[in-house]
Amino acid sequence: MTRDFSDLRINPDRMLASFTQLALIGATADGGVDRPTFSEAHLSARKWLKEEIERSGLEFRTDGAGNHSAFLACADKHAPAFLIGSHLDSVPNGGRFDGALGVMAALEVLKTVGENGIRLKVNLEAIDFTDEEGTLVGLLGSAALAGHLRQKDLESPRGGRENLTAGMRRAGLSDESMLSAARPKDSLARYLELHIEQGKRLERAGIDIGIVSAIVGIWSYRLSFIGRADHAGTTTMDDRRDASLGASAFTLAARELVMRDFPNCVVNVGKMDFAPGAFNIVPARVDLALEFRSADDDEFKRLDAALLDLAAKEAARFGLELKTEFLGKHTPAIMSDEIRSAFANACDDLGLTHVSLSSGAGHDGQSLVVLCPVGMIFVPSMEGASHSPREFTKWEDCVNGANVLLQAVLRLTAR
Amino acid sequence: MTRDFSDLRINPDRMLASFTQLALIGATADGGVDRPTFSEAHLSARKWLKEEIERSGLEFRTDGAGNHSAFLACADKHAPAFLIGSHLDSVPNGGRFDGALGVMAALEVLKTVGENGIRLKVNLEAIDFTDEEGTLVGLLGSAALAGHLRQKDLESPRGGRENLTAGMRRAGLSDESMLSAARPKDSLARYLELHIEQGKRLERAGIDIGIVSAIVGIWSYRLSFIGRADHAGTTTMDDRRDASLGASAFTLAARELVMRDFPNCVVNVGKMDFAPGAFNIVPARVDLALEFRSADDDEFKRLDAALLDLAAKEAARFGLELKTEFLGKHTPAIMSDEIRSAFANACDDLGLTHVSLSSGAGHDGQSLVVLCPVGMIFVPSMEGASHSPREFTKWEDCVNGANVLLQAVLRLTAR
Repeated sequence: MTRDFSDLRINPDRMLASFTQLALIGATADGGVDRPTFSEAHLSARKWLKEEIERSGLEFRTDGAGNHSAFLACADKHAPAFLIGSHLDSVPNGGRFDGALGVMAALEVLKTVGENGIRLKVNLEAIDFTDEEGTLVGLLGSAALAGHLRQKDLESPRGGRENLTAGMRRAGLSDESMLSAARPKDSLARYLELHIEQGKRLERAGIDIGIVSAIVGIWSYRLSFIGRADHAGTTTMDDRRDASLGASAFTLAARELVMRDFPNCVVNVGKMDFAPGAFNIVPARVDLALEFRSADDDEFKRLDAALLDLAAKEAARFGLELKTEFLGKHTPAIMSDEIRSAFANACDDLGLTHVSLSSGAGHDGQSLVVLCPVGMIFVPSMEGASHSPREFTKWEDCVNGANVLLQAVLRLTAR
Repeated sequence: MTRDFSDLRINPDRMLASFTQLALIGATADGGVDRPTFSEAHLSARKWLKEEIERSGLEFRTDGAGNHSAFLACADKHAPAFLIGSHLDSVPNGGRFDGALGVMAALEVLKTVGENGIRLKVNLEAIDFTDEEGTLVGLLGSAALAGHLRQKDLESPRGGRENLTAGMRRAGLSDESMLSAARPKDSLARYLELHIEQGKRLERAGIDIGIVSAIVGIWSYRLSFIGRADHAGTTTMDDRRDASLGASAFTLAARELVMRDFPNCVVNVGKMDFAPGAFNIVPARVDLALEFRSADDDEFKRLDAALLDLAAKEAARFGLELKTEFLGKHTPAIMSDEIRSAFANACDDLGLTHVSLSSGAGHDGQSLVVLCPVGMIFVPSMEGASHSPREFTKWEDCVNGANVLLQAVLRLTAR
């Protein structure tokens, strides 16, 4: 960087206009958005993004994983790409900010850099990753780009193979295209992401920016409690092998276990599927969607063993069989010290307060950490609401985050 | 009855041929049948029944509720109909015997009476009632025929209004036709039904025939535990309002309550529906399908109050809201003494042992008890299996049941 761009700021009104337009796509009556990966609303949002990129005079790129990018090339055509971004997919009935803010801020950074004719030593790329939320696989686009997506990850994804193949078909993608999206290791310079906090720490402490130290890992399982279908009127209570009892007892006990023995971890039973699922039949089988998180690999192993032991114990207590299907994991990811410093310096220069914190949520940075240095910042989220229509971040905070992102990019690409 | 028909027997091979053909329609790989009301398999079974009736030279009749009948008219065209029968619909992934045996036995009784040129004082009608099992409404065809089906029963049925309307459309029926199927009170003489026991008492005691004294009632509810959708990684365990906890705790506690305080009753949580139902979202809402049974009206009231109290307590314990939707009830039904005597005499003459017992399962006789005297018999069911592919009754026992039905019909129509 030959000129001094420390006074450069993004255009808050332009970013707000884009953010608002995007929030209308898949909007729900309660103020949220419903844009699960490859749903009609998600594909519409991506179509809008492509047009928005082209309207801005930036280059549009996409890859075999469906990742969408705005691209601002530098003079050196062999230079690596400096990625900034997030994702446009939402959980079912999610909020307007999770993912969308990071993509709109990244795009705004490119527009700002571009219109100011700033020459960087890298290609700057604002990316919208495919299926960050895991409606289908989770961190799908970033895993594909990072080259550690495997065929087996696509065979029994957490959202179901049929949903995945139907979704890929709608998006014009396939297993083959997904697996071909890997980029060479030296092709990426950095990955930076702005996101809402999804917790209450910043809001409660009145701090402007959270600089992420590490992203927790996630392990997920499908646990099946298997009993016997019987007539619910004629089978005596003590003669039943009722799958709902094992699933219910495990759900209650898993929560108690984590609260008592693993205070830094969280566990969630997000869904149960009953079979055959009729009023008048004793449930023969309950499939339970289990997910748990930790920032530490050793703690993960202890928690995993404790939860599976608990499931086996509750199944045995009610005369049930237990089947466990491990659906995959994301290991905890440590953020780059260099990027954390760049964020901190940018905050200081912008007069924003900041704090270091870990991310309880998974993010695409986890996928990329093997490939290049990764960093993330958070902005305050009202009441910590996330994955919910109640998500809300003051626009001033969104603008602060985008400016920190811009200034960190400029600092890191100036060397 | 001017001649003595006490030596008359049904044709076991002919009944077996019909029973076996029927069991192939909607057959599942594990030896059961999957014929929920108005499914393709159910409609195929009814088409087959219609053709089987016509092949037998009997008159086929149907009504606005979709009930299918074989009709054997007597000389007096103003005579009432003497109904015998059961139902061809099954629970999802049910067995071959529940319902189907009763319809095949009733049809065989008509064939036997018809081919022997026996003149009765009533019209004999072998009926297949619509939706006995309650995939959609429960005892639907018999309630319609008995004239106590109401529009509101069709508005929010336990199987969901959309499923009901889609099913009726497939079957060429409608709300209007359903409500028009009521028969005049004096048009029915009796209703008799043969069914598998759906319990272990006959098998364990080595008794041939169970003569039913009363059919238990059923009350059903949809209970909704309502919390808040939150991010399952960033929301601390004690900050959650997790709907799964109330639903799970209620499921366990309801069982304990019934086993401890209501030993003559049963309770079932047949299904839970999680919303939004994702791995990484704390469940905001769980809808729970609740059903409980008793043979006594006072006991019902006490059990109802105790269960709703329990649900409210568990919801409050986890900071959840509770919504209760009463989906309807079938009151306990007392069987006719006259018909019970006819069954007992027939058993004695046939050299079959018999015992009086109550039915823990609901049956169409409950609907008809306001209209005419009702009676039922049970035949032994291996291991008491019911609503399951494991249903099995020895063919000898099925034949015994059909002969008791035949002889009881002859005794009751001879006066």
